[in-house]
This record gives sequence, structure tokens and C-alpha cells, in this order.
Amino acid sequence: MSQDHSTASLSAFRWPVRVYWEDTDAGGIVFYANYLKFMERARTEWLRQAGIAQSTLKEQSGCMFVVSATNVQYHRPARLDDELIITAAMEQTGRASISIAQEVLLVNGADRAQAPQLLCAGQIRLGWVHAETFKPMRIPSSILEVLK
Amino acid sequence: MSQDHSTASLSAFRWPVRVYWEDTDAGGIVFYANYLKFMERARTEWLRQAGIAQSTLKEQSGCMFVVSATNVQYHRPARLDDELIITAAMEQTGRASISIAQEVLLVNGADRAQAPQLLCAGQIRLGWVHAETFKPMRIPSSILEVLK
Amino acid sequence: MSQDHSTASLSAFRWPVRVYWEDTDAGGIVFYANYLKFMERARTEWLRQAGIAQSTLKEQSGCMFVVSATNVQYHRPARLDDELIITAAMEQTGRASISIAQEVLLVNGADRAQAPQLLCAGQIRLGWVHAETFKPMRIPSSILEVLK
Amino acid sequence: MSQDHSTASLSAFRWPVRVYWEDTDAGGIVFYANYLKFMERARTEWLRQAGIAQSTLKEQSGCMFVVSATNVQYHRPARLDDELIITAAMEQTGRASISIAQEVLLVNGADRAQAPQLLCAGQIRLGWVHAETFKPMRIPSSILEVLK
Repeated sequence: MSQDHSTASLSAFRWPVRVYWEDTDAGGIVFYANYLKFMERARTEWLRQAGIAQSTLKEQSGCMFVVSATNVQYHRPARLDDELIITAAMEQTGRASISIAQEVLLVNGADRAQAPQLLCAGQIRLGWVHAETFKPMRIPSSILEVLK
Repeated sequence: MSQDHSTASLSAFRWPVRVYWEDTDAGGIVFYANYLKFMERARTEWLRQAGIAQSTLKEQSGCMFVVSATNVQYHRPARLDDELIITAAMEQTGRASISIAQEVLLVNGADRAQAPQLLCAGQIRLGWVHAETFKPMRIPSSILEVLK
Repeated sequence: MSQDHSTASLSAFRWPVRVYWEDTDAGGIVFYANYLKFMERARTEWLRQAGIAQSTLKEQSGCMFVVSATNVQYHRPARLDDELIITAAMEQTGRASISIAQEVLLVNGADRAQAPQLLCAGQIRLGWVHAETFKPMRIPSSILEVLK
Repeated sequence: MSQDHSTASLSAFRWPVRVYWEDTDAGGIVFYANYLKFMERARTEWLRQAGIAQSTLKEQSGCMFVVSATNVQYHRPARLDDELIITAAMEQTGRASISIAQEVLLVNGADRAQAPQLLCAGQIRLGWVHAETFKPMRIPSSILEVLK
């Protein structure tokens, strides 16, 4: 099935995440809202390695990214102690918002001989807004340059 | 703008939620993943008032609902101490999954003279699966009857 | 055993909380850190019924309560769908901090004929600090009056 | 002040944690209950490097560790993007429970020339219980050996 395979390009940013008790629920699996946290950690580190720290950005520009839409498909569950890889890749850039494609992959087996398995995929749209008024603002070109 | 107005039918189930510190983030607003928690509370109470307790259901049938897809649009942020209403209405029923339309509304003003304001809207798809194997199962007609 | 019995005075503030999926972990029980969220909801509502809204307080005084110490004993676990009562009672008041005794009780049985069962008890110390500098400040007497 | 200085022995286990949006609240700081999550991540990794994976342990022994008491002092807040170190060291071992001393330290400055600053310290007591009945059980000596 196509959903078994990651569509993340080889150039996508990758960030490792481990599943702890805090992430799971009584179904024995990761609580679905928590994949959004994993995806945000990867986006944050992707920005950081591009030289963008969000706390500094907010102080300097008075603006910040806020999530304006999320679209997530859950294919297979992750469990306690699982080792995950979260990807992030730019999908679309606009004047006041960007769209990021992300995947949650399960690292397979102790020897990691197999390809990681796709657990969950999402599109996250971020708007660039004024930190006080939440009015949409034009994304500084310095940021767009870095993210491309 | 159309996004200001709730499209929830008058017959939609409604559940009140208050915003606490735990729900907010350093942006001063509700952390976006937490709206999924609010929506689930409303879905759970909607099922409960229809006579369905999920913990009992799992014990008796060996099956449970899991979220298979979420699609959420964030229009305006909620803040600490805000009084919200979360709606839930059946959108579509299938053999092994159902789709639920939900809204997060802000109660306006102390006198509540104004209509609630739409903050966030989502479509949540739930699959009915075996609690151990997570294999998709046919939703019992007794449950579908109750939810219609 | 003494731990089975609530020591909350009859005059303690009481707030109902329902356990949802979001509160549980893969052990099948409420994740222990989440009882702190339940306790905070009760403290917040206790303050609110005394006429104190924390968001308004922060805007008007430039100060806020922050948790400076927690001491929690976990006796029995709560589970999905459980109906809980969270208590809050003033234990000690100082110039810059207050200490609050709280309990988490399980509502027993559908008929509620039995006394609620003690699941968890805690002492929470709150400091009153400047919202920007986090320096300890003297608690306004108007607030102390109300809480006694 | 003594609270500025870590009392963690040099031999304590150390685990790095980064602060993300998910960890913060509207006060602009890390939500106090979330330090318990950070501490648990460090405990989990401490067990893992000692060869103990909790999910495997539960499957094989039918038992698991549950938190029976927490005692946490909050000295200074952590903020978005902060780089933390979480320590874990055995404090006391009993037949059915162990007590672990933990600290949350802030990595100081880009050059890390200064010593990490103590933000938060806690004692966490874990009970070893049957995973279904939650009855206290005797901790296997194989586990105690490894943790000493």
C-alpha cells in the first residue's frame, strides 16, 4: 500500500524522537495529538539549524509563526520506547504563510536494516503574525531565503 | 468573512470547556494541539450522553475508536480563562469509520448577548479497530444507530 | 489504612473532573503529572468563585501566582472515564506565598452511595511574583482576605 | 544562595532536553508539571543505558514502575528554546520502591563557560507493581543490581 512508504524526499530535514510514557494513552499507543508536538520539535530544529531561533525572532521582529491549519493522516500507531524520525520539508511559500510537509517514521529493528516505516503524515500551514495583535504580516525575505 | 461564523447546526452536541494554564503556551494563547483534546472531550461526552462509555465498550467488544485523520483550521486564538463551547456532529458514517464535524466557539462577553465566535473548526475521522491488533473492524450497528 | 480516607475538611472547595484519553498513559492509568493539572483547575475555579480571575489579575497588578513547590503522594490510580472530585483548601498564608492542600477523590459507583475514595493528595506552594522579572512580591491583602 | 547550586554528584546520569512551545504556558515559562516529564525522560534513558527498556520489562515480568510520590522545588523558570540538562541519581533503594534524586539545570550561555544553573530539584519515589492489579511487588534483584 502506498501509505506504507515515506514520500519524504531524501533532502528532507530529519529529527529523532523517542516515545516516553508522557506521549502514550490508555490505548497503549501514542496519543494522536502528540504527533503534532513531535512535528513541531522537528520544525523548530529545522529552523534552528537554518539559524532561526523562534524566541530571538519574536523579540527582534515582534512577530511569530502560528499554526493556521493542520491536516494529518494516521496510518499506524507508535508505542512506548519506539524510536521515531520526524521529517520536515517546505511544501509551499506564500507572502504571509508557509506550508510544510512532515512525516513520522518508525525506525525498524535493532539492526536498522529495514527502511523506516511511515506511521503518520501531515501538512502544517504556518501564518506569520504580529505577536500581540495576531494580524497576518508579510514574512521577512531573510526568513524565506533561509527556508528554501 | 465566512470563517467568523459557525456552521454547526443547531442540533449539534455542545460541551463547555474552560481554558486553564495547562492549555496555553508562551505565545499567550491555547497551544494548537490542545484543541484536539477539547474536541475529544466533546466527542466523549457526546457518546456518553448517547449511552456509550468508551472504557466499557473496549472491555465488552475488544474494540475501540482510534483517530485516523484530523483536518483542523485555526481562525482565531483562545486565551487563558476563556469560556469555550465545543460542538460535535456526525458528518459521515461508513462500515469501519465515521467522520465528525467539530467547532470551537468562544463565548462572547459577560452578558453572552452576542453569538459565540468561531475560533477553530475540524473534521475528525475515527476508525473502529481491534484494541490489540489495531485491525479495522465493522462498527456494530448498535453504535451506528445511536450516533445517527 | 489512613491513606484510604480523605482528610479534606467538609468546607474544602470541590471541583469535578472527568478522565479523558488525553489524561491517561500506556499503563492504563492517569499519567501522574496530570494530577497536577487537575489540581490547578480546582485552584483556578476556587479563585474564580472568590472573584479572582488570574488573567485579569495579571493585567491589573502585573503580578501572578507561580508554583514554587509541589509535594504529591499517589495512593491509587484513576482510569479512563473515572469521575473525580478535586478539593482545595488554604493550608498556610505568608507574605509572598501561600500553601494549598489538595486531594483527588474517586466518585464511587453509579449510585454514589459510598464515600469518595482518596487517590492522591498534595501540598502546592504558590509564590506571588512580578510577571516579567519573577521577583517575589508581597501578596495584596485584598487577595489574602478573599482566600481565608 | 544554596538553591543556585546543583547538588548532583558528578557521577549522576545526565540527559539533555530542549524547551519547545509545547512545554511552555502563557506565563512565558515552562509549565511546572512539565518538569516531571523532563525528569521521567532522564530516568527512562538512565534505565535504558543500564540495559532496561520499560516496555520489554512490562512484557517479560508483568510488572512496572509507577510513581508513588513526587517532591519538587521550583527555583527559577526555564523558557522557550532553553537548553536543559536533567540529572538522575539513586537516592534510596527498598524492597518494593526506589527513590531517585533529580535536578533540572540550565545550560548557561553560548560558550557554556559558566556552570549550569539549578532551576528545579526533585525527589521521585517509584513503586514496583503488578501491571494489572497495581499491587506492590518485590523489585527483582537483577534490576536493583543494575541501578546501584
